Amino acid sequence: MQSTMQDVPLLISRILTHGSTIHGKAEVRTWTGETTRRRTYAEAGARAAQLAHALRDELGVRDGEPVGTLMWNNAEHLEAYFAVPSMGAVLHTLNLRLPAEQLAWIINHAADAVVIVDGSLLPLLAPLLPHTPAVRHVVVSGPGDRSLLDGVTATVHDYEQLIAGRSTSYDWPELDERAAAALCYTSGTTGDPKGVVYSHRSVYLHCMEVNSAATFGLTDADVCAPLVPMFHVNAWGLPHASFMAGASLLMPDRFLQPGPIAEMIETVRPTVAAAVPTIWQGLLGELDATKRDVTSLRNVVIGGSACPPSLMRAFEERHGLRVVHAWGMTETSPLGSVAHPPAGVSGEEEWTYRATQGRFPASVEARLVGPDGAHLPWDGESAGELEVRGPWIAGAYYGGADGPDLRPEDKFSPDGWLRTGDVGTISPDGYLTLTDRAKDVIKSGGEWISSVELENHLMAHPEVAEAAVVAVPDDKWGERPLAAVVLRDGASLSFEELRSFLGERVARWQLPERWTAVVAVPKTSVGKFDKKVLRRQYAEGELTVTRVG
Amino acid sequence: MQSTMQDVPLLISRILTHGSTIHGKAEVRTWTGETTRRRTYAEAGARAAQLAHALRDELGVRDGEPVGTLMWNNAEHLEAYFAVPSMGAVLHTLNLRLPAEQLAWIINHAADAVVIVDGSLLPLLAPLLPHTPAVRHVVVSGPGDRSLLDGVTATVHDYEQLIAGRSTSYDWPELDERAAAALCYTSGTTGDPKGVVYSHRSVYLHCMEVNSAATFGLTDADVCAPLVPMFHVNAWGLPHASFMAGASLLMPDRFLQPGPIAEMIETVRPTVAAAVPTIWQGLLGELDATKRDVTSLRNVVIGGSACPPSLMRAFEERHGLRVVHAWGMTETSPLGSVAHPPAGVSGEEEWTYRATQGRFPASVEARLVGPDGAHLPWDGESAGELEVRGPWIAGAYYGGADGPDLRPEDKFSPDGWLRTGDVGTISPDGYLTLTDRAKDVIKSGGEWISSVELENHLMAHPEVAEAAVVAVPDDKWGERPLAAVVLRDGASLSFEELRSFLGERVARWQLPERWTAVVAVPKTSVGKFDKKVLRRQYAEGELTVTRVG
Repeated sequence: MQSTMQDVPLLISRILTHGSTIHGKAEVRTWTGETTRRRTYAEAGARAAQLAHALRDELGVRDGEPVGTLMWNNAEHLEAYFAVPSMGAVLHTLNLRLPAEQLAWIINHAADAVVIVDGSLLPLLAPLLPHTPAVRHVVVSGPGDRSLLDGVTATVHDYEQLIAGRSTSYDWPELDERAAAALCYTSGTTGDPKGVVYSHRSVYLHCMEVNSAATFGLTDADVCAPLVPMFHVNAWGLPHASFMAGASLLMPDRFLQPGPIAEMIETVRPTVAAAVPTIWQGLLGELDATKRDVTSLRNVVIGGSACPPSLMRAFEERHGLRVVHAWGMTETSPLGSVAHPPAGVSGEEEWTYRATQGRFPASVEARLVGPDGAHLPWDGESAGELEVRGPWIAGAYYGGADGPDLRPEDKFSPDGWLRTGDVGTISPDGYLTLTDRAKDVIKSGGEWISSVELENHLMAHPEVAEAAVVAVPDDKWGERPLAAVVLRDGASLSFEELRSFLGERVARWQLPERWTAVVAVPKTSVGKFDKKVLRRQYAEGELTVTRVG
Repeated sequence: MQSTMQDVPLLISRILTHGSTIHGKAEVRTWTGETTRRRTYAEAGARAAQLAHALRDELGVRDGEPVGTLMWNNAEHLEAYFAVPSMGAVLHTLNLRLPAEQLAWIINHAADAVVIVDGSLLPLLAPLLPHTPAVRHVVVSGPGDRSLLDGVTATVHDYEQLIAGRSTSYDWPELDERAAAALCYTSGTTGDPKGVVYSHRSVYLHCMEVNSAATFGLTDADVCAPLVPMFHVNAWGLPHASFMAGASLLMPDRFLQPGPIAEMIETVRPTVAAAVPTIWQGLLGELDATKRDVTSLRNVVIGGSACPPSLMRAFEERHGLRVVHAWGMTETSPLGSVAHPPAGVSGEEEWTYRATQGRFPASVEARLVGPDGAHLPWDGESAGELEVRGPWIAGAYYGGADGPDLRPEDKFSPDGWLRTGDVGTISPDGYLTLTDRAKDVIKSGGEWISSVELENHLMAHPEVAEAAVVAVPDDKWGERPLAAVVLRDGASLSFEELRSFLGERVARWQLPERWTAVVAVPKTSVGKFDKKVLRRQYAEGELTVTRVG
């Protein structure tokens, strides 16, 4: 017996058409520092069609070709988000926080022939162009010093002039849903950056999951503020999901500092926002100091790296913001799990659940693999590397996974599951608790010490602003933890006191003997702790280390 | 550039595994008339595995073969819902309200070799078996007079004995997501019944949409009561959606009368319920009389046929129940549109939206086609036949659409869209208002009169219990409306008064001249008005018709 259902592909153009017609009155609002410039989804859809015509007819972009974007979160970036994949090309979001060399490497690796760039980012792009010969067209959006492009071999276009006067409708092609739609490189903490190519199918299904009530549940009553950059895993799918649900979007543009963000939230009153912990940490300080009203937010999503429970509690207790923890990575689109507590729990039990990485949606299969390759039980105790499988999970890297310290089998199991590199446990009711990155676990005398657990305890101390723990070589134990601590302004806390504080919370053999005070924890371009740098600083004797205990 | 995403199929076995592990504590509760018998999703999953082993090893069911179910909404039916498609076979839900002849026709057309039957339904099945020679196995679930099966050629099994002792886990096969999963026949108001074969993909995507916040938004805090039968378009996808979301299920079993339903709701306190208007109409009368507490329901879904706005208001104003109107059909899985009002509207404007058939989700494309084949604008005024397209919309019938009065091109456009047979308008913001079935529209002197609009106005009169309007031949105008009215007990209302009442609401030329009082409006097996019967009764002079005006 054969199915009699229609065979209709899941395409980003459908999300675009749906959002710009049925939800045509919803708006993308871009923060300008004081107010927002507003564009309806109907207008955004019309402009996306114009952009697609320009890219195809004027710039010669063909199916499957990448179009780079080096842009902030704003209305024009949103237009590219929809126009490029809908026409059959591939949206390649470039991470504007990367070092210039890495950025050039990525542009060359993807072979971007077109780059759409925000005028304010020309100082970043212009010096790269001599090293990215494949770039034939540069499209500049918004104000900026265009003279920086004088003499480049690529043709320079103005975004508004390029799209002006073109047809505001486009007969979007009926693509294969498995066709490439978007390309995002991981920030490459080990080896070269690695490209993940999302398909229309993966983006569409991920978008449906984001909108499920058990995940973020966007509706047309929401105003969604993606504070996570649009170059960072499709801003966690929120631009697509907002268009699908008819939620309006609030884009922070380049105003990502705590003060402007707080002002934007108080002024525009979004209902949902999402960002990495570093942004929220900064915002918390700002809110504590300025008492901005951010109570419009019904749901604040934190993800991108483990979030200290103390931060979640601080937001809830001091500012009435409910924070939801989510786990994911570039390779998981990124929605891997969401830490809504089970229905019916409350109080401290609820916090226990909310401090985890959460539950997996139906479309994400998960398993834990021990050091010997055995699959471990979901008993809340057995710790292993998390492997995942699903229609929005990567099964390879663009052009293969290379680099001196990475082979494909390090990232994908023989049966095709993604090896996340995260170590943790899963409870019988499916809650994931990540204790560490596989590479950051401290292997001390045959036992594993979780660096993240120690960090969370340290950062729960009121006088600690940030803390990172890394493994350093030890003659007797193989490895031992080194604690790098940033104290709050005016704090007068000794390492001995901190070690005692920690001693009340973890086993004695896990307590660090090596302590160092730092001005800030080194971070990667997307705001995660860069432990590689700390380990190198220690190895090269750049840190002043105090031995305690 | 190629996508690097994993190619993981969307399968019902994934929903089953997810629900029975991560949501293993959720429950399917089956009403027994006074209380519920309870089974966790973990237990349901284990029993589904046992059933699959039995069907494969003992009964020889192979991939793609149909397994019939003639059952009420209960835990065992749920087990079959998941076991049969997950193992690769096709769940064929049999409509127990059909006339015996039609039921036998359907079993033969599908060539069901296995039928799982509720013991209480043996009086219905047993007489059919001599006429359904392909049925090799009958599996009887629950109490019933098994002696009715004495002498049948099929092998008879007891459900519990059949599954007992078998493995509670099953290595579900990795099927093609486009493989057949479930088969449902339309009730066939014109010609023979027509089979729609859902795929794993269509069921999975539909399930995700049901769980989106903008649709029904089930979560693990919900208890979902599908009062719509499980043989009626997969109970609107609610069993699958509940498993995916971890919502518990409350199954009414055979207790579908207003009194027992009201008692069940008061006792078990479900949060979501779904049924056709006829059921709700009956329940409203019961609630008015008995004042049962049904306030646990946060969301009541009405669909299956147009719902009188007066009914929705009555529930909300008298019993605090928020009713949501949804439109769909067997061919649309059934979710076609949902009438949540746009955010921000209230009062009478909100009711205007809620009385429509609602908005389409992103995965359902819609267009209106006029009598001349032209596509009509979404202006809220141009009325045409609704055509839809999407991954959970049928593109054909099983074995083709046959019958003397139906050709495939009547139901599917040359470019593959489903012709719904519904006539209506779409507003600029995407709200569908169905005014009639294409075949029920009254073609009077070159104008169309909507029978449904007249019915809704008539049923809004407090002394009218039910009203149906059908087209009857008229020498002068071609067709004119005939109003068939059921008055409430004790009502003393003349047709003249009713016609005046109607005259305040519609144009004069639309007012019926022919009126008849009936004891009840004839209904199809799924509770829709059966206008075919009324038209025949009129043609054969069986109705006492009064001319008014």
